[in-house]
This record gives sequence, C-alpha cells and structure tokens, in this order.
Amino acid sequence: MAYPIITISREFGSGGHSIGEKVAEALGVPFYDSKIVTDVVKASGFDADYISDKGEYLSAGSRWFSGLIPNEMYTESPQTKIFNMQCDVILKAAEKGPCVIVGRCADYVLSDNEKYRTLNVFIRADKEHRMERALERYENSNVSIEKRLQQKDKERKNYYSYYTNRTWGDINNYQLCLDSGYLGEEKCVEIIVDAAKAHDK
Amino acid sequence: MAYPIITISREFGSGGHSIGEKVAEALGVPFYDSKIVTDVVKASGFDADYISDKGEYLSAGSRWFSGLIPNEMYTESPQTKIFNMQCDVILKAAEKGPCVIVGRCADYVLSDNEKYRTLNVFIRADKEHRMERALERYENSNVSIEKRLQQKDKERKNYYSYYTNRTWGDINNYQLCLDSGYLGEEKCVEIIVDAAKAHDK
Repeated sequence: MAYPIITISREFGSGGHSIGEKVAEALGVPFYDSKIVTDVVKASGFDADYISDKGEYLSAGSRWFSGLIPNEMYTESPQTKIFNMQCDVILKAAEKGPCVIVGRCADYVLSDNEKYRTLNVFIRADKEHRMERALERYENSNVSIEKRLQQKDKERKNYYSYYTNRTWGDINNYQLCLDSGYLGEEKCVEIIVDAAKAHDK
Repeated sequence: MAYPIITISREFGSGGHSIGEKVAEALGVPFYDSKIVTDVVKASGFDADYISDKGEYLSAGSRWFSGLIPNEMYTESPQTKIFNMQCDVILKAAEKGPCVIVGRCADYVLSDNEKYRTLNVFIRADKEHRMERALERYENSNVSIEKRLQQKDKERKNYYSYYTNRTWGDINNYQLCLDSGYLGEEKCVEIIVDAAKAHDK
C-alpha cells in the first residue's frame, strides 16, 4: 500500500507551502520544498543564495542563452544546470516513495514516467486573501505587497512555462485546484489528505 | 443560515451534471439544469428543441450578427435572446435562495452582484475517463466518441467566452476544480457538499 506522490503548485501568498507541510505531516511522508532541494543542490558548488534566488525564477539571461546561441555553441546556463539538478533530486525523492513536493515543476518532472503515481494540486486564492497573508510575512518590506504578488506569480509562471512548455495553472494539469481563501487552509489539507488516502494502492 | 449558490461548469463526459444533481439532493436545495431552464424559456415561444440545441452552444450566425452589423442596425440574434432569457431564469432562481445550477454560464451571470454568494465549481476528467462515461450514454451513436468530446468542449468553450469574455476553465474563476476521473463521482459530491456546509451563513 502506498499513497501517491503529491505535488503542490501554488500562487504566491496562497498558503500552498504551509498546506503541503501539513499534508505531509498528516500522511507521515517526507516533505520537499525549496530549502531541501537547495540543500542537496548546493553540495554541487552553487551558492545557496544564488540557488534560492534562481531555483524557481528565470532571469533574462537564461532565455538569451537558449535563444540566440546556435546549438553547437550552446553552453548550459547556470539556471538550466540548477533546474536539471533539481529534477534529479525530485526523481530520487520519488524513487524513495510517497512524499509531498512543493513547487519546482515537480508535477511536470514526474509526468514523463508512468511508474510515479501523482496527485497534482494547485492552490490559489483571490488577491485580497493573498495580500492579507503576504502582509503578515512581509510587513516590514519596502516593496508594495500587490506588486510583490504580481511579480512572484509572473516569475513562477515564466519559469514553469520555460522549462515545461506548459501553462502554469492550466486546469488540465491538476487533479485538484483549491481556493485556499474560500476553503481555508485546514479544509484544503483535509481534501488533499482524503484524496491521497483514496488512492492508497 | 443559507448555503451558497453552487454553479457547476463541466467538461463533456466528466459527470458534472450527475454530481450537481447529487449535491442538490444532499443539501436539499433546488437543482437547475438545461431542462429546467429550457422549460421556462420555451414558454416564451421558442421551440424546445431549438433551445436545447442553441442554449449552450454558439452557431456561426450569432458571431456574424454581433461582429458585422453596426450598433444602430443591430438586431439581437435568437441565440442572444435565449441567452438573456436564461440569465433572467438564473437570476430569479438565485433570488429564491440556495440552489445548484449546472452550465449556462451561471458563474458569470451571478458574478456581477455581490449579494449572490456563490461556490463556483469546475468538473473535468482525463480523456479516457470521459470517453468511457460518454460511451455508456452514446453507445449507439454513429459519431466517434472522441470527436464528440472535442466538439462539445469546443462549443461550450466558444459559447462561454462569447457571452462572458472570460476563458472557459480558467482556474481563477472557480473555488474548486475537481478531476472526477481521479477522485470519483462520490468524492466530488462530498467535497462540494462539505465546502457548501462550511459556508452556511
């Protein structure tokens, strides 16, 4: 018997990270987020802060590299190297068994191989709920919360579409899309845990 | 105390209609689908079969009318008349209190007025599950089930975007998007009923 691997994509400020942590705790399975992925990847020599900054966001540089340099001269950008290392970490985590993975295109990374049974979840919320939540975390920031929300979502969207050729938040890629502002964090956790238990095979 | 009004949008063959019926039954609230809307609208003189055919799908005609005729010469197409009458039926249903409404852009129709508290749900499933379900219902049809699936979804998408200027299946318009193939019909019903009960205000 084994639960599916749960991947969680989330809008900034939607509480998706916290929901993922609680789901992992409820099911008693490992939880992988940016920090854990970062820990493994930094062993490769990249600076931890650099990875934290670039590991889910895309700079203009990586587009430039891939778009303008002919294939035979192509040098893998640091960001693409990081992406590929993250893929390895995700695949190794999946090999070990059921877990919860937040972000990092995990839904896409695991979609190529049918042996990984996944439950792909997208967590969103309306702007008001997300701003309220983000304010609690970034109340001393000089950047407007609304701009930060827009910027982070845009970066995640670009990063996801660049590496996956899919659209971030496309309803067809998820088995569950939940509005955490409407449902509340606890209800989201409950729905995901229930769905995972129903697929305990 | 009152439940929110539940609107259900659904991909063809996803079981969204049946899920809606069961949710209404579980909550003890009225259920409105194409038939009930049709019954009311046909009192206006349109032929029932015509409404059934055009009430959720868009012919090339209605695009032509609205796109090429200057405003002062504009004559409302029969389809737009039907759409407007359906809107009236939906608004009158909403006035009466909590209910479940399947299709007919109800999520959009009720979004203009804050007094209607809605829980907007989208039901989808992968092609295999939808084909299996559609085959049970249309086993004697001469039309390929796969083509029928594609055609119906395309028609619903066009109809929705024409009358709402929104994208059908855009994750941002729903509080719950559920994959009925993965979750099963009963689990979908349970999740929607739970969410409605949590918003019993």
